[in-house]
Amino acid sequence: MSAHPLALTAAAQDLLFREARTANSFTAEQVTDEQVRAVYDLVKYGPTAFNQSPLRITLVRSPEARARLVDHMAEGNRAKTAAAPLVAILSADNEFQEELPQLLPHYPQARDHHFAERPVREESALLNATLQAAYFIVGVRAAGLAAGPMTGMDFDGIRKEFLDDDHTPLMVVTIGRPGENAWFPRSPRLAYDQVVTTV
Amino acid sequence: MSAHPLALTAAAQDLLFREARTANSFTAEQVTDEQVRAVYDLVKYGPTAFNQSPLRITLVRSPEARARLVDHMAEGNRAKTAAAPLVAILSADNEFQEELPQLLPHYPQARDHHFAERPVREESALLNATLQAAYFIVGVRAAGLAAGPMTGMDFDGIRKEFLDDDHTPLMVVTIGRPGENAWFPRSPRLAYDQVVTTV
Repeated sequence: MSAHPLALTAAAQDLLFREARTANSFTAEQVTDEQVRAVYDLVKYGPTAFNQSPLRITLVRSPEARARLVDHMAEGNRAKTAAAPLVAILSADNEFQEELPQLLPHYPQARDHHFAERPVREESALLNATLQAAYFIVGVRAAGLAAGPMTGMDFDGIRKEFLDDDHTPLMVVTIGRPGENAWFPRSPRLAYDQVVTTV
Repeated sequence: MSAHPLALTAAAQDLLFREARTANSFTAEQVTDEQVRAVYDLVKYGPTAFNQSPLRITLVRSPEARARLVDHMAEGNRAKTAAAPLVAILSADNEFQEELPQLLPHYPQARDHHFAERPVREESALLNATLQAAYFIVGVRAAGLAAGPMTGMDFDGIRKEFLDDDHTPLMVVTIGRPGENAWFPRSPRLAYDQVVTTV
């Protein structure tokens, strides 16, 4: 074995993981639709079960919509949600099976054989959209931007205001270039032996 | 705006997303603990709520353990689970709060203020360990390997055989170098306008 078993370059490791941080403040630079398209065009390839691709993204751009969203955030997250260049609501589409014939052309029967029941779809959409939420966070970093994923808000209120019964909100993500004092010192991570066991 | 809004190099985009694929067959080349350590040492930096880091990884290395695992897989996944160089069970630790004083030294009270109740922990661990599962898949690719994430197995059986009541299994992942005919043709992805809306 090489002493450096990763194929990914050190610069890319830093960009995506080692130096990337959850930002709490941003510069005024806008995040364009072109940038979001480039992120999506990359992370859409991340794997999901049956290629179901249930993640949906709501970009909250208008000042009126931003104000409505801020009202549903936890108090400690309101100021940064109001100030971020862009904010996205990530949700899971519980009716993703309607797109399966497009997404899985070699097995279009998957829609009816595996996902005829809504509770099954909800569980699968939650898992797979959450995987895609992580790919999206990595993709925002791949664009040289910082992401600030947040949970702990009034999810029911966000669902009623911005989504519908078929979409389950997962998190809200601020996006932009990190500003001054954008983050706390890096917190420790668990040691390998606290996480990995072998049987 | 630049016409190429991603900061990540094209080679890294290919390695992690564009050319990376879920492998259904592998070469005989072993996956070493050193490689798994390098993957973990990279993806441990991916963000989670309160830095809770609930993902746990069980490497199934002994032939006896592999045989027990195969029995709990869906029939269509048994042969590749038996043949892969390495197989990992990814799970969520529902008692992650015990590590929060280590993980969040500036706010050790988070353990008791936010995660005193088990149902709250289970929901948070599921979401955040799933994010980390996606980081792990990206990290396996960063090591030049292919990952084969699988769900749809006998999760209760796997929990009883390999885990305990405090750990919820999320998926099983095969890991190795792709073999011959390792994948189907790439399936289509959703168009940007099917996924992203703006308000």
